[in-house]
Amino acid sequence: MMKIMVIGPGRWGSFIAWYLKKIGHEVLLYGLNGTEDFENFKKSRTNGIITLQDDLELTDDITRAKECDVIHVSINAQGFRSVCEELKSIGIKDKIIVTNMKGIEISTGKRLSEVCKEIIDGSNKVAAWIGPGHPQEFYRNVPNCMVIDSEDEDVKELLIENYSSDLIRFYYGQDLIGNEIGAAYKNVIGIAAGMLDGMKISSLKGALMSRGCREVARFIKASGGKELSAYGLCHLGDYEATVFSQYSHNRMFGEMYAKSEKYDKLAEGYYTVKAIKIKADKMNLDLPINNAVYKVLYENSKCEEEIDKLFSRSLKKEFY
Amino acid sequence: MMKIMVIGPGRWGSFIAWYLKKIGHEVLLYGLNGTEDFENFKKSRTNGIITLQDDLELTDDITRAKECDVIHVSINAQGFRSVCEELKSIGIKDKIIVTNMKGIEISTGKRLSEVCKEIIDGSNKVAAWIGPGHPQEFYRNVPNCMVIDSEDEDVKELLIENYSSDLIRFYYGQDLIGNEIGAAYKNVIGIAAGMLDGMKISSLKGALMSRGCREVARFIKASGGKELSAYGLCHLGDYEATVFSQYSHNRMFGEMYAKSEKYDKLAEGYYTVKAIKIKADKMNLDLPINNAVYKVLYENSKCEEEIDKLFSRSLKKEFY
Repeated sequence: MMKIMVIGPGRWGSFIAWYLKKIGHEVLLYGLNGTEDFENFKKSRTNGIITLQDDLELTDDITRAKECDVIHVSINAQGFRSVCEELKSIGIKDKIIVTNMKGIEISTGKRLSEVCKEIIDGSNKVAAWIGPGHPQEFYRNVPNCMVIDSEDEDVKELLIENYSSDLIRFYYGQDLIGNEIGAAYKNVIGIAAGMLDGMKISSLKGALMSRGCREVARFIKASGGKELSAYGLCHLGDYEATVFSQYSHNRMFGEMYAKSEKYDKLAEGYYTVKAIKIKADKMNLDLPINNAVYKVLYENSKCEEEIDKLFSRSLKKEFY
Repeated sequence: MMKIMVIGPGRWGSFIAWYLKKIGHEVLLYGLNGTEDFENFKKSRTNGIITLQDDLELTDDITRAKECDVIHVSINAQGFRSVCEELKSIGIKDKIIVTNMKGIEISTGKRLSEVCKEIIDGSNKVAAWIGPGHPQEFYRNVPNCMVIDSEDEDVKELLIENYSSDLIRFYYGQDLIGNEIGAAYKNVIGIAAGMLDGMKISSLKGALMSRGCREVARFIKASGGKELSAYGLCHLGDYEATVFSQYSHNRMFGEMYAKSEKYDKLAEGYYTVKAIKIKADKMNLDLPINNAVYKVLYENSKCEEEIDKLFSRSLKKEFY
């Protein structure tokens, strides 16, 4: 049994806490007082998707991370730096920090593990937990496959040994760069998929998957990772949960955007598309799908125009 | 303008005929008298999905293939050999024969272009037209991307030049082996997807896509093709139309099979899974998803058991 803190009581963070508790670990779920999710859990122990176990402790005291073996973080990716700084300020040492998020930092173009390692004490290890699955489905006992990756083989081994169950079967990640980028980029493809749905041309999602994976593979390779990772659970394996799911925030955001309908809040991919755009421009890399989504979201291009442009690109070969 | 015969008035063949006519070619649609599809077209010019143009000629005379530049074949894959023999018997020469089918011959393990080349006169060229898209969607003017592949560069060039339109944008195939295998294997993954739907564990379709592409890539590579082709339009790009679509016969067949419901007719993948099983056994290749579907369809295994086995495989790495 490990003692674990999960930072972030959102849809995914609360699921992680519930899951780790369910398989026998001691779990603290950390949240900020006054935020909707956390207040709901304090009041009723449920967010409408899952109900937390009675002996899963809720805490607003970040220093209790020091009691734990592993600290999971599941917040918006652009806010991750400040959480790392908070963990540093309380003197976190010799812990495993696991990211349960998808994103790339806009201001630096860094992957989340890079952001974390830059800030926290070197005695800590960093890992990423990625892959498909909806809290809603796991909660009703539908299993799925996921990936844990880390630069440290022992950390991977330890986590997978302690976290595997009939509900989640973990693969050992072999490419942290590719897995983190693939996971983040998935949200951009999710927005693009939603736009196709919103324009009622959903059958183009097949081509989007194929061309999308290819684009992500090129970006991963140019970033120093392995291109095949785009076709793994971190990216392609997560398309069911994104490109085709009613549960996906990113897909729904894209759909509502294309229909010019109101949306409650921006999706994570809204930030990722910008981070990738800036990074790719510096690398002199042409990423047509990311560019198209960027132009629609940030430069007032029309969805229809950008799709037309994508579709009429004069490429002859599928793979380049 | 080219003169074209389409053999096979089924859902896909009739669409091909309609499309080629629509973009300005002269088209003959060949069918057998007495078959349901052909009689419907003769009576009403529609199959409920598309309505053929008035000047698109229906014929039951196979010898008229000799008037044409290109002959498309869209029938069940296991019947392709006999069509090739019929074309040979009428003395077909100097034509382009295009396969609009997905399958592998069970008795020989051969790809369709191999079957064709083995039989017809050497003056003929062979090409394959593959990729995603539903007749229903094309007919309401939703565009898509597809692939034409051939061992002959000039044939590819000629067909793509003459067949491209705003509705279908063609890529130049670069791996006939991979594209034909990928297209055929897609129907097996479609059946597997339907089984997951039937068992109400659809969220595993993400993992199915990722693991499925990987398995197909391995089979393509072992067969002498390029593994990346599995991730192209021929296979992954066709998942929208198969893994997630209500229109897919193969997915629907798998779903009804898993629910032990009646189905009207066997799906194409039912034959493909057997062809791949025989071929893979000879090659000493382990293809877990194809094996699982084979065991369910041919050896009375239960879907649940085979899924459990797939899920509990002790693989640690995603890519091997």
